[in-house]
Amino acid sequence: MSRYQAPLDDIRFLLEAFDYETTVQTMAAYQDFDLETGLSMIDEYARFCIDVLAPLNDPGDSIGVKYDPADHSVTMPPGFVDAWKAYAENGFTSLPFEPEHGGIGAPFVLATLASEVLIASNKSFSMCGGLAAGLIDALEAHGSEEQKEKYLPKLISGEWGGTMCLTEPHCGTDLGLLTTKAEPDGDVYKLSGTKIWITFGEHDMTDNIVHLVLARLPDAPDGTRGISTFLVPKFMDDGSRNPIFCGGTDHKMGIHASPTCVMNLEGATGYLVGEPHRGMKCMFTMMNAARLQVGIEGVSLGHAAYQAALEFAKDRRQSRSLDPKKRDADHKADNILVHPDVRRMLLTVKSTTEGLRGLVAWIAIQYDIMHKSEDADAKAAASDLVALLTPIIKSYGSERGFLNTSESMQVMGGAGFTQDWPVEQYLRDVRIAMIYEGTNHIQALDLVGRKLPMGGGRLLQRFAGEVTAQIEAAGAFPELAPFVAAMGKEAGRLTQTTMDLGGKAMKDPELVGAVGSNYLNQFALVTLGHVWLRQLCTVMARPADDKLRQSKLQTGRFFFEQILPEAALYAKKVAAGKGSMVDIDIDLL
Amino acid sequence: MSRYQAPLDDIRFLLEAFDYETTVQTMAAYQDFDLETGLSMIDEYARFCIDVLAPLNDPGDSIGVKYDPADHSVTMPPGFVDAWKAYAENGFTSLPFEPEHGGIGAPFVLATLASEVLIASNKSFSMCGGLAAGLIDALEAHGSEEQKEKYLPKLISGEWGGTMCLTEPHCGTDLGLLTTKAEPDGDVYKLSGTKIWITFGEHDMTDNIVHLVLARLPDAPDGTRGISTFLVPKFMDDGSRNPIFCGGTDHKMGIHASPTCVMNLEGATGYLVGEPHRGMKCMFTMMNAARLQVGIEGVSLGHAAYQAALEFAKDRRQSRSLDPKKRDADHKADNILVHPDVRRMLLTVKSTTEGLRGLVAWIAIQYDIMHKSEDADAKAAASDLVALLTPIIKSYGSERGFLNTSESMQVMGGAGFTQDWPVEQYLRDVRIAMIYEGTNHIQALDLVGRKLPMGGGRLLQRFAGEVTAQIEAAGAFPELAPFVAAMGKEAGRLTQTTMDLGGKAMKDPELVGAVGSNYLNQFALVTLGHVWLRQLCTVMARPADDKLRQSKLQTGRFFFEQILPEAALYAKKVAAGKGSMVDIDIDLL
Repeated sequence: MSRYQAPLDDIRFLLEAFDYETTVQTMAAYQDFDLETGLSMIDEYARFCIDVLAPLNDPGDSIGVKYDPADHSVTMPPGFVDAWKAYAENGFTSLPFEPEHGGIGAPFVLATLASEVLIASNKSFSMCGGLAAGLIDALEAHGSEEQKEKYLPKLISGEWGGTMCLTEPHCGTDLGLLTTKAEPDGDVYKLSGTKIWITFGEHDMTDNIVHLVLARLPDAPDGTRGISTFLVPKFMDDGSRNPIFCGGTDHKMGIHASPTCVMNLEGATGYLVGEPHRGMKCMFTMMNAARLQVGIEGVSLGHAAYQAALEFAKDRRQSRSLDPKKRDADHKADNILVHPDVRRMLLTVKSTTEGLRGLVAWIAIQYDIMHKSEDADAKAAASDLVALLTPIIKSYGSERGFLNTSESMQVMGGAGFTQDWPVEQYLRDVRIAMIYEGTNHIQALDLVGRKLPMGGGRLLQRFAGEVTAQIEAAGAFPELAPFVAAMGKEAGRLTQTTMDLGGKAMKDPELVGAVGSNYLNQFALVTLGHVWLRQLCTVMARPADDKLRQSKLQTGRFFFEQILPEAALYAKKVAAGKGSMVDIDIDLL
Repeated sequence: MSRYQAPLDDIRFLLEAFDYETTVQTMAAYQDFDLETGLSMIDEYARFCIDVLAPLNDPGDSIGVKYDPADHSVTMPPGFVDAWKAYAENGFTSLPFEPEHGGIGAPFVLATLASEVLIASNKSFSMCGGLAAGLIDALEAHGSEEQKEKYLPKLISGEWGGTMCLTEPHCGTDLGLLTTKAEPDGDVYKLSGTKIWITFGEHDMTDNIVHLVLARLPDAPDGTRGISTFLVPKFMDDGSRNPIFCGGTDHKMGIHASPTCVMNLEGATGYLVGEPHRGMKCMFTMMNAARLQVGIEGVSLGHAAYQAALEFAKDRRQSRSLDPKKRDADHKADNILVHPDVRRMLLTVKSTTEGLRGLVAWIAIQYDIMHKSEDADAKAAASDLVALLTPIIKSYGSERGFLNTSESMQVMGGAGFTQDWPVEQYLRDVRIAMIYEGTNHIQALDLVGRKLPMGGGRLLQRFAGEVTAQIEAAGAFPELAPFVAAMGKEAGRLTQTTMDLGGKAMKDPELVGAVGSNYLNQFALVTLGHVWLRQLCTVMARPADDKLRQSKLQTGRFFFEQILPEAALYAKKVAAGKGSMVDIDIDLL
């Protein structure tokens, strides 16, 4: 079986399509990262992931993490500890972070696209650094200078791990219910309570683990307005153990090598980050990049599954082509890639994967602009797009990723269901992405309830402007006419759905809950249509016999003919309203 | 956690809706099985499944089967052997089979609806009897009297197990490629070759295992016209071991307690069943009931997951209702069943499950009519519906079942992804149903390529007649008007799609492959609409305050408003044709 390969050609193309060289590379902060430097960095990173981390993925799944209640320790599967040291020593934990605290300072878009390869190689492993990254972002944005000096270098270098401790047994989605207490004790706080679902809450890969814990001060108001954020290290400066102990790890369908911990705080010492009662700000800082990352998990494992399915298909002969002209006279059966349904399944995965990867590239570039551009207007525009499209990447990326691993399995028949191939693990590993970092419905509420009304609809107008401009630009290419027509129709339909929904939602807030998930999917498909149109306009500059041009044109065609029409279905579901959901009595369910 | 409960009320209702008492019960063969007798039989069966088999499901998954290469043996997880003995002693292996050979002779529809409970309790366990049933059907239809006398009583009583040995390493879907050889040796045959994916090919639950093996005689023509069928027992009459050995078991994503075996035939003695080279007839006899059964697997695990999700939801409070009037002042958060999106997910599962269960009930009754009615016209009509709708039940049932377990998991958030709840196992166990007994695309080819053209379109006309009559009958109830309208529209669209496709497929057989899977789904949704309309007409006879009437009306409404519109999407995909699939070069994938 050949190995997973990083989608380096597509990454190069997407950086071109979304103007890396004229946007990111021109910024003062990123002058050292011209396109070729950036790509060779990704290439080096990808080699490490594939050579060192991918071989640990299957054993990590079979062996899993081991919890020892005697000392509350968690032991990683064989090879993970050494791999982490090597990963950190190579500087890979520090790619996108500020040089001020030891980061490499690479553009966010490069680190983000590279992370697809990390996740495809070993999703469980990827989560250790993924969680620490959230903590680093939060500290960079909200920590005191002293906290930054003390924690950031160790976190960025990978010497220490980091977590986000949000969820409690009675509150996941609804953080306002949380009850973990923080009692003032001189300059510090003593925290008590129980946290659950804490990814890499305990493990043996780093010398120390720094937890970012949401808790309530004694005078805190109820709800989310009374939540504060604290840094709680596993080991104190003097080497003593801070009483934040792992009480067990969850047994899960997938990501077996990612410890999901119950964490008990038994008067653990914590340091306030930011202002009292303003912890949700900190939480949202952590969450934003994390949500983008979760969407990438869908892209990543969907694409890894696609590669396995394609490889299987290339070797497999079964049945005759329905078209007699395509039959291979040298064999008793034809290669299964001759069967249109096999192509249908593969192209479903390929077209949505390349659409989503394009969307990630586009929005990750907006992150860089938002943070590092010197042009205030450009920053504002980028920030709007990031805010609007992050919930879509998280939700649609994770849902499609799950469906795409399943579709890839279907190409392989029974083989895909066995552990002889990696696809069944991808399917088990990717399913959680629809749930964590805010369930997919929470993303829909964020989109419809927060992002659409924000600034009087400014975010949506910004997006609509991009879509309209792209449709106009594509008008220059007669070859793209059917796609332009399809896109124009669905963009118009989305505008109509949005206006209808906006009008009704003013009078009926419950409607947003009833239709939000379907609306998000409609929006996502139009967004992918936009990204595809951008890609197709970009390849038109290449000669007609260019392979990438041909591949993108055919794959894009499949998207516009077979996938984009799903947007109209979601529009119908939105238009049907809430009645069929809310009118039924609970005891009739 | 409360336990899975059998859907006995819905089964009773469906038997009423599909006229059990006026069709099945009036047949001479089934006089002893009036409705109440039948229901109490199902109830007794369900109790056994839930009390004895369900507790083995989770340990069966964790422990799995053990293969010992030293003696080619397979050991079942603890408890399975005793459970099988008890299951057989209770007569449960013999429910639907002919009394002539020790069967109970219950109507097929009762055994079929009961099997949903068996699968929900322990899918792996269910597969042992499920495979034997295929062998029994094949023997009843094609075996010699001597073979019937010798094998049927032991198979029906559950003393012996049975398998179907079809697939080989190089041929699954395409049985014409198979190479297992059968050399004549006096009155018997010596078989050599390797079979894979053999469910319950080896295990320690029964005293003997009888394999039905597809193989090729020395003078056999190429392809499927040269396949013969043989009975190959594990132990010969004198107790000696026949050389058909298990060479290993597959490690799979799910159904860990169902041994999936490589079987090596090393000159094993076999007995010809039926005529030489006519083995495919035998295979199709086995397959037909098996395909219905696989569709039920989707219904079963989707519904079991639904129950777990509903139970979780009833206990869980999280966030506030978006409608202030629905907030519970006594608590800081509302029960999640107040959130429309949670209801949307649950009703998606409930409405498709009840639609599919209704379809199974309807078609299983047609099986009984087809086999046991004394009215030749009724038999012919029933046979047409069975032939037409079996691939739809298999394909759409398994696909929906997979999506429904996933949707149920989503209701539960992180809890659903853990092994603390059974849903993650259901998801892993149900996924194979889309693959085995003919992949779902094979069902689509069967529907479009074989069933639609059969008898000059007679099967479809028969179905269309039923749909039209039901729409007319529903017209009597003003309350059903919106559903009648929706159904009329989608039925009309299906006719149009079918006519378009039929015309084009005459000139382009490849088109059937390109659009078949989407066409099957369009057909399936219209079929479920028909079944729902039948259910709604039936409940209208009940008083307005009847709970089942209210539940069916609301659940059916959800189906017509939120699910049936998916048919139009599939129609669009079919209309888009094959170009986007077949025009792309393989090396561009």
